[in-house]
Amino acid sequence: MLALVLDGSPRLVTDRPMPARAPGEALVRVRVSGVCDTDLQLARGYLGFSGVPGHEFVGEVVDADEGRWIGARVVADINAGCGACEDCVAGRGHHCARRTVLGIAGRDGAFAELLAVPERCLVAVPDGLDDDRAVFAEPLAAALHVLDEVDPRVTGRALVLGDGKLGQLIARALVSGGIDTTLVGHHPHKLALARAAGVRGVLEAELPAALRGAPLVVEATGSERGLAQAIGLAAPRGTVVVKTTVAGRIDLDLAPVVIHELRLVGSRCGDLGRAIEALARGEVDPRPLIEARYPLARADEAFAHAGRRGAMKVLVDVVPR
Amino acid sequence: MLALVLDGSPRLVTDRPMPARAPGEALVRVRVSGVCDTDLQLARGYLGFSGVPGHEFVGEVVDADEGRWIGARVVADINAGCGACEDCVAGRGHHCARRTVLGIAGRDGAFAELLAVPERCLVAVPDGLDDDRAVFAEPLAAALHVLDEVDPRVTGRALVLGDGKLGQLIARALVSGGIDTTLVGHHPHKLALARAAGVRGVLEAELPAALRGAPLVVEATGSERGLAQAIGLAAPRGTVVVKTTVAGRIDLDLAPVVIHELRLVGSRCGDLGRAIEALARGEVDPRPLIEARYPLARADEAFAHAGRRGAMKVLVDVVPR
Repeated sequence: MLALVLDGSPRLVTDRPMPARAPGEALVRVRVSGVCDTDLQLARGYLGFSGVPGHEFVGEVVDADEGRWIGARVVADINAGCGACEDCVAGRGHHCARRTVLGIAGRDGAFAELLAVPERCLVAVPDGLDDDRAVFAEPLAAALHVLDEVDPRVTGRALVLGDGKLGQLIARALVSGGIDTTLVGHHPHKLALARAAGVRGVLEAELPAALRGAPLVVEATGSERGLAQAIGLAAPRGTVVVKTTVAGRIDLDLAPVVIHELRLVGSRCGDLGRAIEALARGEVDPRPLIEARYPLARADEAFAHAGRRGAMKVLVDVVPR
Repeated sequence: MLALVLDGSPRLVTDRPMPARAPGEALVRVRVSGVCDTDLQLARGYLGFSGVPGHEFVGEVVDADEGRWIGARVVADINAGCGACEDCVAGRGHHCARRTVLGIAGRDGAFAELLAVPERCLVAVPDGLDDDRAVFAEPLAAALHVLDEVDPRVTGRALVLGDGKLGQLIARALVSGGIDTTLVGHHPHKLALARAAGVRGVLEAELPAALRGAPLVVEATGSERGLAQAIGLAAPRGTVVVKTTVAGRIDLDLAPVVIHELRLVGSRCGDLGRAIEALARGEVDPRPLIEARYPLARADEAFAHAGRRGAMKVLVDVVPR
């Protein structure tokens, strides 16, 4: 089958074997997939992944053990825990040490005609929700997961640093949760996008003093400097949610973390069902974030496009529209 | 009066003016004070402090607005908030931007015959509690503050990294809170001290696999490497309490924080009243941590002693015993 493969730099192949469907797994025909910054980092060697990347997708189930899935339009939780270990039993399957992560670790992903994923990871997409919104379920789930760090006793307002794809979704997620949210960025046109979605958008250089010192700061800059900036903008005893996974090390002054008793919380994946519901209810409309789309046969160009400085969401149409 | 002064390196002076007692403040004759690693860092230029250091003390009130304090033996909360700002009104006076911190910022401290401190910061020492235990109230308060990060739903056991003064107190504080606690260090004799207090003491190189992956890890190594080590020993979604304030920057790989969704919490000062109660009830006995004592006239030697690698608590007898 046609697939984009990482093995060094991304390359298209036409002879990738179809994924084998293990018992309990569904075989899914991918309809559309999205390029994430993590994919770009994987292409640079992050996590040592080789195989088919891609973890943001909508597809149609073509085979499964449970008949009810066959023909269903689905997204999927990308973390497939072993189901048996202490973490899995305690509901922390996202942290199972033996998990596979679709298109990231131990399992081929969505820049291919077909993928295999455990049926227990599937989430059905309602009829009224089109592919172009549903394909955002995975990153939106990660964005909505930030709401789990909101303490309603203290979090009246939040700062989101980074006006890129993830920052945009997080800001929208916080607004959907009733939080007075300011997106801080460097790109007037991206801040305008956020404003159209009910988010206050401010250039970093113009952030007023009254908005500094926030009880919740979300670091989604994708930059090595982002965390230090977030720490500097958090109120004493405030929470800094760390979303950026930078491949490599950062240089950090920890003293303010201790002196101001900040709480730095790493935050990764969220609940796909919650994201699909938020999309279906229209609480978040991610479609203005789509910047370009390419057929699977040009997925390498999609990667190159997504890697351009400042690029927003690039989609890959695996099934032609 | 006689005092140790920081202005560059520590030096003894005999002509330090007596502190002025502002309205609402108590004038306290210091009886005994303890040397903290923060004092040693201040001597190296941390926070740019100049003046009399010293924030661990027991003293006797010689003058105050409220008559009931006069003659009382006291310790004091070292953070004196302005009392009027948003943080102070919300009970976060420890984070008041205009606060003074005894012997650390904007207020002379306890390596002197007398000090002045707001009466609202005073905590009375019960008659049955001797000076040598009460002088640990401030660091023990900081240690007990770690219990505020214990989530009883998940924290069955804890690792404390660093067998020095602060790590020893934190381990004892956790044990007093019913937590199965392992102190991880490099010094057999210090680990033996901890064992005598009911703490499991283990050499870092001998830490068994079953004790790794803890839901709570407290970083109290005082070392730049400590945080990376703590991150490596935390279970997914675990909490790392950061106690070390290293002057300067550290080099850190943040990816595990995001991937394992860790929670890094800076932790500084605690509640002096809580510490005095724990000491008075005999829940923590810090006296085995005392390694040496010097009269105030040799406080410079006390600093030199405390600065030796591996030194435990060094006390300064301001009033001769």
